[in-house]
Amino acid sequence: MVGDDKDKILVIALGGNALIRKGQKGTFKEQLENIKRLSPILVRLARSYKVVITHGNGPQVGLLYLQQELAPDLPKMPLHACVAMSQGLIGYIIQQAVSSLDTGIEVTALLTRVVVDPNDPAFNNPTKPIGPYYNEREAKRLSVEKGWKMAYIPGKGWRRVVPSPKPLKILEFDSIMEAVRLEKLVIAVGGGGIPVVETRRGYVGVDAVVDKDLASSLLASELNASKFIIATDVEGVYLDYGKPTARLLREICARKALKLVAQGYFPPGSMGPKVEAAAKFAMKTGRTATIGLLESLERLVDGSSGTVIKNC
Amino acid sequence: MVGDDKDKILVIALGGNALIRKGQKGTFKEQLENIKRLSPILVRLARSYKVVITHGNGPQVGLLYLQQELAPDLPKMPLHACVAMSQGLIGYIIQQAVSSLDTGIEVTALLTRVVVDPNDPAFNNPTKPIGPYYNEREAKRLSVEKGWKMAYIPGKGWRRVVPSPKPLKILEFDSIMEAVRLEKLVIAVGGGGIPVVETRRGYVGVDAVVDKDLASSLLASELNASKFIIATDVEGVYLDYGKPTARLLREICARKALKLVAQGYFPPGSMGPKVEAAAKFAMKTGRTATIGLLESLERLVDGSSGTVIKNC
Repeated sequence: MVGDDKDKILVIALGGNALIRKGQKGTFKEQLENIKRLSPILVRLARSYKVVITHGNGPQVGLLYLQQELAPDLPKMPLHACVAMSQGLIGYIIQQAVSSLDTGIEVTALLTRVVVDPNDPAFNNPTKPIGPYYNEREAKRLSVEKGWKMAYIPGKGWRRVVPSPKPLKILEFDSIMEAVRLEKLVIAVGGGGIPVVETRRGYVGVDAVVDKDLASSLLASELNASKFIIATDVEGVYLDYGKPTARLLREICARKALKLVAQGYFPPGSMGPKVEAAAKFAMKTGRTATIGLLESLERLVDGSSGTVIKNC
Repeated sequence: MVGDDKDKILVIALGGNALIRKGQKGTFKEQLENIKRLSPILVRLARSYKVVITHGNGPQVGLLYLQQELAPDLPKMPLHACVAMSQGLIGYIIQQAVSSLDTGIEVTALLTRVVVDPNDPAFNNPTKPIGPYYNEREAKRLSVEKGWKMAYIPGKGWRRVVPSPKPLKILEFDSIMEAVRLEKLVIAVGGGGIPVVETRRGYVGVDAVVDKDLASSLLASELNASKFIIATDVEGVYLDYGKPTARLLREICARKALKLVAQGYFPPGSMGPKVEAAAKFAMKTGRTATIGLLESLERLVDGSSGTVIKNC
């Protein structure tokens, strides 16, 4: 275990909006500028904590996979290899944005594989949205032509969904732990990690995208992090979200939160895994996890914004 | 400096043929199987040395870039971002191949940026071939349509060439050194590193592909490696290559070798940078570098095959 009082570890899971904002197409420049806006905060946090950044990859991996589809004469990389490529792309973007401040802070980005169970029920029930949004007609066509499973995201449109099995083990954990011990800022478990299954012949990649919040929670727990932050595009966890009776929770007990997840209270592939990820971290470590707005990142860390999930 | 007698560091630069063999298209499966064939040797070497693997990315980065071109409606990533993606892809393939042997050897892959000079003359004289081969007609069309610089590779066909500036500094060197100190097998400086220039506003990516042998030589020198191996598809350095008088050199002095490079004796973008990379390592460290066949990797390490470049 790392993480004593002197070297507090802060794990920050960056949501998709950290890289691509609403209405943006996701160009390199857009993604770089978005992270650059965040980088003074990350650098400030790195003065008080050993910061580990994890990140989503939904739009990026979806676009990469789509580009492979559109070039039929070229060798098409499987989805798990696209996840690896998205770790390269996004890790580089974060490195460039943070080291641009001439702070002397070295940013280490480690390729990370995550072991999943080949019998995970998620393989028969894809829930993780990747790539762009489509209208209903396009969605139906893609479903027939490519055999893609499509799902409707309320108010936003149709999107391809892929299996999102639970992360069981972070293969590069020891390397990540050593990097965290030595460096101020480490990027790991990008896109939830590259999903592999254990076989008698070794590790084999599988076509899936692991939920980045659940994988980040696993990492944060194993690092014995002092805080785990899930930075996203909503203010926190709501009861009755989207209804007139909606109210933001400032604090919730992990056990209660997990019960609500199990009852299907939160949408899968969205707030559901976030609450589950935060609750699991709180229960395993006895520490708190916070879910809230990316724009309030420092206030999420000091506890004055977002929903705090406690082990009670 | 690392690298005393107890912890000898071996830097192995894998050529393109390690991943994609002649006649192959470069599918994921082909690349994985090719590295798998090599992995028992890498694991054996990792028992006697701290092994650092670097690798080329010419075909992979070329294909990625081409896929971006063929999907005009999707955001197109710049060449330097494609280099980052190729580090993700190839690093993952090597991790999967080597860790499949259940050896307990952890393989760490680090994203690596390399600083180049914005005034490097290479930006006006592209020499690094990337992507697939074309026939003359296709090459002319691409040159007109896309503004690509195309070059004829004797006996093989036409290929796109991009600038290949000299590597000046490995930005993630400290992280790599720490990983080498702790691990048995480290993957770094993939595809020669992601090329960036230093500006007053920080590091900015540039559209180029750094020669992986020169970048690997820089890494090997700074790590104070005990040996530097360039594994490729020829038996070693030839005098009069391709002529009836051709003869393989078993040994050559670094100074003499550099003179031959300066005289244009070896083709640029091919044997030229390899000889330069090997000679620079030998002169900086006083140790030997070896250039030879990938298939003879263990014999290159023990000195019984390939061309040995010495500091004499």
